[in-house]
Amino acid sequence: MAVTDIDPENASKTGTDLEARLRQIGAERYHDKHPFHALMRDGRLTKGQVQAWALNRYYYQSRIPIKDSVMMSRLIDADLRRIWSQRVVDHDGLPEGGTREGQGGLKKWLHLCEGLGLERDYVISEAGVLPATKFAVDAYVNFVRDKPLLEAIASSLTELFSPGIIRERVTAMLAQYDFVDEDMLIYFKGRMTQAPRDADFALDYVVRHAITPELEDSVCQALVFKTNVLWAQLDALYFAYVEPRLPPPDAFVPED
Amino acid sequence: MAVTDIDPENASKTGTDLEARLRQIGAERYHDKHPFHALMRDGRLTKGQVQAWALNRYYYQSRIPIKDSVMMSRLIDADLRRIWSQRVVDHDGLPEGGTREGQGGLKKWLHLCEGLGLERDYVISEAGVLPATKFAVDAYVNFVRDKPLLEAIASSLTELFSPGIIRERVTAMLAQYDFVDEDMLIYFKGRMTQAPRDADFALDYVVRHAITPELEDSVCQALVFKTNVLWAQLDALYFAYVEPRLPPPDAFVPED
Repeated sequence: MAVTDIDPENASKTGTDLEARLRQIGAERYHDKHPFHALMRDGRLTKGQVQAWALNRYYYQSRIPIKDSVMMSRLIDADLRRIWSQRVVDHDGLPEGGTREGQGGLKKWLHLCEGLGLERDYVISEAGVLPATKFAVDAYVNFVRDKPLLEAIASSLTELFSPGIIRERVTAMLAQYDFVDEDMLIYFKGRMTQAPRDADFALDYVVRHAITPELEDSVCQALVFKTNVLWAQLDALYFAYVEPRLPPPDAFVPED
Repeated sequence: MAVTDIDPENASKTGTDLEARLRQIGAERYHDKHPFHALMRDGRLTKGQVQAWALNRYYYQSRIPIKDSVMMSRLIDADLRRIWSQRVVDHDGLPEGGTREGQGGLKKWLHLCEGLGLERDYVISEAGVLPATKFAVDAYVNFVRDKPLLEAIASSLTELFSPGIIRERVTAMLAQYDFVDEDMLIYFKGRMTQAPRDADFALDYVVRHAITPELEDSVCQALVFKTNVLWAQLDALYFAYVEPRLPPPDAFVPED
């Protein structure tokens, strides 16, 4: 849709409503409401369960820059593409030689995994990842490839809600798990500024382009889809590692 | 790969080993080993849990003829394509007017859902399907679209093991659940002849074309992938409806 199609008057009026609808979806469906997150926050996970979480989440992390590359491949406007490319840099990092602070998010996530006692090569191999994790994450990449661009962009809006869960998670992990220290959690430090910057941009884009009730609905459905992607990953962790604790064949088996 | 690339001598020698490897994968990983199937077989599911199973499985059923259409779109050989098209007919049926016996598998599955007390339109809407079911099933369709043709065909080989689980399921459902009768299970009657016919064809194709150790490995991995697709669906049902019994937002909620 060309920028000239947009009536800024209308956009700003319905935009407020749309933002409220999107925030309501987050309030109801973001994975900070999931029982697995509650266990983590309340200090009730074993080290093995935290390992399983980090290992599976690595698969998600690894596919985020792929998802963002797919998105870039769909952006015809070079300005948009350049803005979006910052996301890939955030995860993949800049050329070698910088400080850990300057590393990409994926390396920082591996640092967390190693700090938790997982073998780096095992994590990278993806051998122990739950199939359900892969199915959910791959569904997200496919969504961004196959859906209308507006919906693809809207599906990133879970980042609106990520500072809250990161704050809860970091506070809880440092307070409640003696096998976690601040250096291990450096990934989250960067995300506290990156996620709001990305979310603000995507929200602005979505509000300006969802100019009919049908498009607004499609944007909301895209966000619901994405909350399902995150939620299903915690369902799978809960099933395999908490209750009934039935990891499928080949999946990571904690020592505890 | 052209037919002329194949040395029949080699193919028949390693073919026996490959078939044994494939059958071993089934023995270890087919979903007849899953605890949810054990509950069904032992008569320990409630009617609501059987409804949840049928409802989610409808999504899988609905995507099978789509998957087979994707496969047909990749088959350059018209003979192969015609043989594969029988699978689509089996699920989609022939033009209206025939007996129920002559209907496609999808209609027969809806008949089962209705017999279990589910609203036909609700089932077709897919509104209550678990997101994890959709992610797993869609991963299968994408696999068949994106992977080498040999692997795409090999991923159908779970049908080698389906007569066994169907026999267990039908026997158990008739014996143990007073809300199930033989007419409701007519879907499975057709599958007892269709599945072995399809599996024999696919196995023959795979054995003739997997003529290097690398290709044999890729075929085995494709079958492992497909067992994961089936397994993950039962994981999700178990998590949402058995233990810890936490259906995600929007998912079907049984009355019992």
